[in-house]
Amino acid sequence: MSEVVYLNGEFLPYEQAKVPVEDRGYQFADGIYEVARTYNGKLFRMDAHMDRLQRSAAAIEMEIPPVKDIEEAANELMRRNGHPESAVYIQVTRGVAPRAHLIPAGLTPNIMMTARPVAKTKPEVMAKGAAGVTAVDDRWHRCYIKTVGLLPNTLAKLKAHRAGALEAILVRDGIVTEGTSSNLLAVFGGTIYTHPATDLILNGITRDSLLQLAAAAGLPVREEEFTVMDLFKADEIIMCGTILEATPFVTVDGRQIGNGKPGPVVAKLHAGLMKWGEEGKRPGSW
Amino acid sequence: MSEVVYLNGEFLPYEQAKVPVEDRGYQFADGIYEVARTYNGKLFRMDAHMDRLQRSAAAIEMEIPPVKDIEEAANELMRRNGHPESAVYIQVTRGVAPRAHLIPAGLTPNIMMTARPVAKTKPEVMAKGAAGVTAVDDRWHRCYIKTVGLLPNTLAKLKAHRAGALEAILVRDGIVTEGTSSNLLAVFGGTIYTHPATDLILNGITRDSLLQLAAAAGLPVREEEFTVMDLFKADEIIMCGTILEATPFVTVDGRQIGNGKPGPVVAKLHAGLMKWGEEGKRPGSW
Repeated sequence: MSEVVYLNGEFLPYEQAKVPVEDRGYQFADGIYEVARTYNGKLFRMDAHMDRLQRSAAAIEMEIPPVKDIEEAANELMRRNGHPESAVYIQVTRGVAPRAHLIPAGLTPNIMMTARPVAKTKPEVMAKGAAGVTAVDDRWHRCYIKTVGLLPNTLAKLKAHRAGALEAILVRDGIVTEGTSSNLLAVFGGTIYTHPATDLILNGITRDSLLQLAAAAGLPVREEEFTVMDLFKADEIIMCGTILEATPFVTVDGRQIGNGKPGPVVAKLHAGLMKWGEEGKRPGSW
Repeated sequence: MSEVVYLNGEFLPYEQAKVPVEDRGYQFADGIYEVARTYNGKLFRMDAHMDRLQRSAAAIEMEIPPVKDIEEAANELMRRNGHPESAVYIQVTRGVAPRAHLIPAGLTPNIMMTARPVAKTKPEVMAKGAAGVTAVDDRWHRCYIKTVGLLPNTLAKLKAHRAGALEAILVRDGIVTEGTSSNLLAVFGGTIYTHPATDLILNGITRDSLLQLAAAAGLPVREEEFTVMDLFKADEIIMCGTILEATPFVTVDGRQIGNGKPGPVVAKLHAGLMKWGEEGKRPGSW
């Protein structure tokens, strides 16, 4: 089936989906986005994604279309593309204006979506674990806003790829913040630690899902900073996100983490996440 | 004359100049740019702009077209738009690929240019001076790369505008770095201070021009950090850039700077810059 793109109310063939060169998203990274995915054909926690999109918009004072309309369009887009499971990418930019730094009032935002096939994390990755590398977290200081200003993230991801790793682990002033497109959880003596949801991380919906599941499973959680030196002493490292789900990381910078194998915490959280996806509501036990 | 846009080798009417929604410039701020202007119809220090474009490209490992071709296209674009004096905006993005953080190899960059009319700084601004406001410099830590990831700059510019100011003065950890689209020079007791050209500022070509002119005029210059508390004690504040040229700032956050009037240093540097523009080479004396 040929790819269909949603753009400002229209469903267009990919080749026709184009935006003016003076879209402020193109010239100023003046845009926000979300990536949501389906399980059993239904978007997972779409309400949380739409809440966050509204928070991102508010943080940069951008008007966005009603989220109800966005969600409807996303579902129609998935139907038209016809994949069994989809990752929907939703981007809203401020609109088009002659280039000037000053944000003009009254622009009409541009909204664009794609829906592409997505697969669950492969069993062999869950069984063997993935590799990470550390990278300097040199991003801006308002990482809680999900903007398209992702060049630092992509450069760190490239570094990871070249080192044969799946993801870069960002470190700011010695503190582990998160991944380039994921959050990071580390297990120390049975307790799950993760960077608090301050300005310096993007508060992931999968991160939130895993913390809810941890609570349901009686696993202790601390949203506290820890250093990269601590990280190497973790029993388990879990990186999580809409696409990554909950993936065990068993090496960092080539050094073995814990016993070098995925541990019980990631197994538990991943199973809970899959159940949540399949059943459409958070499981009480699993 | 109707507006013509350059896009990947073509000269198009503005309405037809569009890019695919999956241009990485649009989705990842994976792009770089330059703004050059003319004096007497000739691009000012275009060689320096092209050098910097190449350095920006190298810093993010992006291939760009030969700068000779870019310069030729810029001149043709100006001819077609027909303004007496032009500001040429040149943007190069990594190219189009299905959205994924990892930078793909082998993409064909997209290059886009506009040429709009530009005017010299108004005599009344030079006579009266402008207002600035301080804002937190929360940008990423590689500000020396001229990327399109400008959302923090635009938000600070909006803050300035709302306060009735022309430009925001960015302050990182108490240190004055630069403006949102300009560099800052401050005069203390006859010596010009400006933030050193580290990773934390965009090393402006106008900044460089003014430092060269200061040297030619025998004015002492120190590329050294100073604090925002120091700034309020400056005799003169000069903000500079391709569009701003060398503009005196006489208030910051509503507080008077020096005697509240544009001083002799900005007058001298501005005159030198105008002479440089008009004559096409740096004046030895003026």
